[in-house]
Amino acid sequence: MSLIVQKYGGTSVGTVERIREVAKKVAASRERGDEIVVVVSAMAGETNRLLSLAHEISQSPDERECDVLLASGEQVSAALLAVAVRDLGWSVRSYLGHQVRIETDSAYGKARIKSIDSSRVRQALKNGEIVVVAGFQGVDEENNITTLGRGGSDTSAVALAAALSADACEIYTDVEGVFTTDPNICATAKKLERISYDEMLEMASTGAKVLQIRSVELAKKFNVPIHVRSSFIGAEGTWVVPEDAGMDSVLVSAVTCDKDEAKITLLKVPDQPGLASQIFTPISEANIVVDMIIQNASEDGTTDLTFTVPKADYKKAMALVEKTTSAIHAKGIQADPHIAKVSIIGVGMRSHAGVAAKMFQVLSREGINIEMISTSEIKISVVIDEKYSELAVRVLHDAFIDKKGLP
Amino acid sequence: MSLIVQKYGGTSVGTVERIREVAKKVAASRERGDEIVVVVSAMAGETNRLLSLAHEISQSPDERECDVLLASGEQVSAALLAVAVRDLGWSVRSYLGHQVRIETDSAYGKARIKSIDSSRVRQALKNGEIVVVAGFQGVDEENNITTLGRGGSDTSAVALAAALSADACEIYTDVEGVFTTDPNICATAKKLERISYDEMLEMASTGAKVLQIRSVELAKKFNVPIHVRSSFIGAEGTWVVPEDAGMDSVLVSAVTCDKDEAKITLLKVPDQPGLASQIFTPISEANIVVDMIIQNASEDGTTDLTFTVPKADYKKAMALVEKTTSAIHAKGIQADPHIAKVSIIGVGMRSHAGVAAKMFQVLSREGINIEMISTSEIKISVVIDEKYSELAVRVLHDAFIDKKGLP
Repeated sequence: MSLIVQKYGGTSVGTVERIREVAKKVAASRERGDEIVVVVSAMAGETNRLLSLAHEISQSPDERECDVLLASGEQVSAALLAVAVRDLGWSVRSYLGHQVRIETDSAYGKARIKSIDSSRVRQALKNGEIVVVAGFQGVDEENNITTLGRGGSDTSAVALAAALSADACEIYTDVEGVFTTDPNICATAKKLERISYDEMLEMASTGAKVLQIRSVELAKKFNVPIHVRSSFIGAEGTWVVPEDAGMDSVLVSAVTCDKDEAKITLLKVPDQPGLASQIFTPISEANIVVDMIIQNASEDGTTDLTFTVPKADYKKAMALVEKTTSAIHAKGIQADPHIAKVSIIGVGMRSHAGVAAKMFQVLSREGINIEMISTSEIKISVVIDEKYSELAVRVLHDAFIDKKGLP
Repeated sequence: MSLIVQKYGGTSVGTVERIREVAKKVAASRERGDEIVVVVSAMAGETNRLLSLAHEISQSPDERECDVLLASGEQVSAALLAVAVRDLGWSVRSYLGHQVRIETDSAYGKARIKSIDSSRVRQALKNGEIVVVAGFQGVDEENNITTLGRGGSDTSAVALAAALSADACEIYTDVEGVFTTDPNICATAKKLERISYDEMLEMASTGAKVLQIRSVELAKKFNVPIHVRSSFIGAEGTWVVPEDAGMDSVLVSAVTCDKDEAKITLLKVPDQPGLASQIFTPISEANIVVDMIIQNASEDGTTDLTFTVPKADYKKAMALVEKTTSAIHAKGIQADPHIAKVSIIGVGMRSHAGVAAKMFQVLSREGINIEMISTSEIKISVVIDEKYSELAVRVLHDAFIDKKGLP
């Protein structure tokens, strides 16, 4: 008998019919003899519907109240799924964040789970019940309702799996698993059978939207095997697991693309200590997350400084930088929202030299200019003109994955 | 400085615009210097929408899960109202049943409030905050979510007012107050300035839908003055208050009409001990509430037994009675779903004889046949053919209220 945590996303519970289908899958899993804890997202579209109500009322709706509002979405789908499972004759109960209880910090809208008191869920499982938990939500120390941010139900599921020492956390979604790249861009994209936590983390932070980054961090920390799979077909999906010896024989596991960033360059800034801090402190105080930063000192004692921010924060960041520009005597600002960050990811890079060089060659052959470069031990990202992004993904996938090319 | 509990019904918070209007009213009350606790219902239509989702999934959806589902409706309106009040610049927080905390028994769908821990609300008021509480919901001892039944937000509001020793509980609704009868039926219906708890209780249980019965019981028990008034116009509404000396100078305060019952008669039942119990035990076990019961023994040792049940339970009750009929050797069953119960209510009846006789005269003059009669100290109800119900209301209103007729 295994203990399995299953998470179903918004599309999987998007209609009454689909909720009934999910109930059948849950019942079938239980019938095989496993203990089942199900985590659900809000019905597709519901979170946006609720948010737009709040925004109709106020331009900047109170964050605490938005969390109370949004948490109702998962409450509805958890109750409906429990109704559907019970209708199939199984013993089942739904639980909300405050009932489990899932305790978080008080950062409304992006709260982090601090602890889970799993005793109530354990007791329910012991009584032979299927447990349905509302994803995405928790309560802080003072019992205020909090939410975990977009994709937060993934994190609820992995955190529950960790707290319960579950054998696996199955993430049911509308795709068949984790792909080597976006199949909509590249026809030869393949479903991965297995991928390491570190690779999945890099994929999530470079544009793959399949799992919330925080859920992968938690899975890595607590060694929870994640199985990403389709709610609509029965086939195995992708296992996200600890790295093992065989994995580094693959040089590049995936190619990702992120078009949600914009680039800002400060020209000819006098190269003095404290410069970066003057530029980035106001941006960070405005809660804008800066991704890549590049600085090249030139011989005339000035430097060009370039960084990327989320497109959604682009205008806000520009306004802040414009204020700073005169204070630091920069010559000007260049900005470009039409960029894409294309990345190749693979733990095999650790033990192979020349991967970056080959990536630059492949792009150069297509006449694609590289505007920024950023690397980690298992990832190389380049920023290019947005219009070349699909082409770049295809040629990199062809060179590194289809042809398994070594440098 | 007074402490006022204000309750806004589903129509009053039915749209984003109306929520903004309610926020303005709340802010205006706060601005006058009062401490304000607001109780809200779900947005109009939401409870039905959620229930129909559950019924699409299951013919008899689990009651515990229905309460989890329905409680989300008040969660949404409480959060949205708090967003709107905050947007006007006031300090405000929403609280759900489990946060206040409002503890109930475990009778899902019709739970009764057992206790309210008002310390959190008191603290918030002390901090100068406006408090918004989700109506209709509570939690049982084990923190399972419960709901209080249709109109339950009235009861939430009165219970909170009692727990906080509030100076008044204002029930904002889509009518201007409590009327002497339904203005849609009788053009001379007048808004009552004041009415006693007992009269309001009789009105609520004979067809007036303005307040949940349980809320009036609580108000009476804890001496909470209720002010029923319109959310859309500023005028005073109706105060529901303890009975005072002047009230019994009015013979009849109101005429009510209830068309939601059906009548079932068992013919020529052998008149033996244990008869009623044999008939009513299966009905009560099916959770069907029987309202009036009349039994007339005749000289041949048989008796006709007539009772009324909610129209919604009529068929279920008939099926149960048909089973019983042969067992108790009754001659047959007559059933009539086309009845109306028309009642006159007034504390003045206590000290005046002949009110019933006059009521029967008034109806008889119009050729209206009386099928059943039931009386209390301050109420007389008659069951008549449904088609005469409006006529009966009008002539009774004319005789007893417009003409202030004494017998």
